[in-house]
Amino acid sequence: MANVQSIKAQCRKVMCIGRNYADHIKELNSARPKQPFFFLKPSSSILLPGAGPVLRPRGVNMHYEVELGLVMGKTVRDLHPDDTQGALDAIEGYLLAIDMTARNVQDEAKKKGLPWSIAKGFDTFLPISNFIAKSRIVDPHNLNLWLTVNNEIKQSDNTELMLFRIPRQLSDISRVMTLEKGDIVLTGTPKGVGPVKTGDIMKAGLKADGKDIEEANIEVP
Amino acid sequence: MANVQSIKAQCRKVMCIGRNYADHIKELNSARPKQPFFFLKPSSSILLPGAGPVLRPRGVNMHYEVELGLVMGKTVRDLHPDDTQGALDAIEGYLLAIDMTARNVQDEAKKKGLPWSIAKGFDTFLPISNFIAKSRIVDPHNLNLWLTVNNEIKQSDNTELMLFRIPRQLSDISRVMTLEKGDIVLTGTPKGVGPVKTGDIMKAGLKADGKDIEEANIEVP
Ligand SMILES: [Mg+2]
Ligand SMILES: [Mg+2]
Ligand SMILES: [Mg+2]
Repeated sequence: MANVQSIKAQCRKVMCIGRNYADHIKELNSARPKQPFFFLKPSSSILLPGAGPVLRPRGVNMHYEVELGLVMGKTVRDLHPDDTQGALDAIEGYLLAIDMTARNVQDEAKKKGLPWSIAKGFDTFLPISNFIAKSRIVDPHNLNLWLTVNNEIKQSDNTELMLFRIPRQLSDISRVMTLEKGDIVLTGTPKGVGPVKTGDIMKAGLKADGKDIEEANIEVP
Repeated sequence: MANVQSIKAQCRKVMCIGRNYADHIKELNSARPKQPFFFLKPSSSILLPGAGPVLRPRGVNMHYEVELGLVMGKTVRDLHPDDTQGALDAIEGYLLAIDMTARNVQDEAKKKGLPWSIAKGFDTFLPISNFIAKSRIVDPHNLNLWLTVNNEIKQSDNTELMLFRIPRQLSDISRVMTLEKGDIVLTGTPKGVGPVKTGDIMKAGLKADGKDIEEANIEVP
């Protein structure tokens, strides 16, 4: 079983899908995409469990986005979108992640047609949980993602609400760029994103059949 | 001395500066940035010398951008912009690179405020030269970058034309995200970017004091 230090050490790219839950698209006043779109976060942004707080850069309005993450177990290239078995076989396991976003930096980038890499890429902007063995998750499209700030529920939705499911995501990514063993894919965030400030405590988790999966727990001061 | 296979194997992120030469900004009708901006290419896009052609994805208008690349030799965090010595000490060596760009995909992304990761991230979209030892380059701000398509000169300019010099680039990047040993930084392209189609032959190189640095030669069918 992979330990989470080796996941950070072996991860070369983190590919994230944008706008993959309808209600989240509405809350950001974004257009509903006809096809999935993706962006990269650098692996240097990964924050391991217990490795301290998320650091808010000066002047940044920092938002949380809780997401189910996939840890790739093999090389994937040109996966067919209907190849559900191929997609699941390529996944080594899961993790929970918070795709921290400098929302004001991102809004500015969107307005100017500039890349998102800075807005998404600060050090500590990707808190992750421990590794979740594949056997622990029977159906990745039927999990409850939740996130609290100072113990108040902010996000809580089921992964069945994804607009584009995991095989389609892996297909679209792998037709552009090869996914390699150790790469991480973030599958999008449901509604409820919002700001956190220094000192706020974020907790997040993953429920299957109403029960928390312990390895998925994140707590970030 | 680093061999180029190990450079690809060890590279986790490729950080690229946009709009770093005034005449290139003009040719793309872009705004001149008040500060440098950056985007990520995935390390999976690296094309090693002799590893075959750049692959043009269907429907893509593919542009070349020749750039001086830095290979980082150590961890860099919060570098001061005036710390020229610190910047040079952090560089393990150089390479020449062609930042291939799906220009129509990028134009569409700019219009919609979407990320650039797809436009910049296709497999084979980062042909690189062999590793250039640091001792071979006396002054990285006084090199001639050139690129030909089917033996016709398309780009030829001196790195002294950079708007933001290397210490400033490394400072700005490292204040957002930690640069790690093995990471690659692309320092921007001069004017003359343009399309290539399947079958075109790109050659590129680097001159110091009017003489080609042999390790920098790229030839991509
Ligand atoms: Mg990367
Ligand atoms: Mg997200
Ligand atoms: Mg470029």
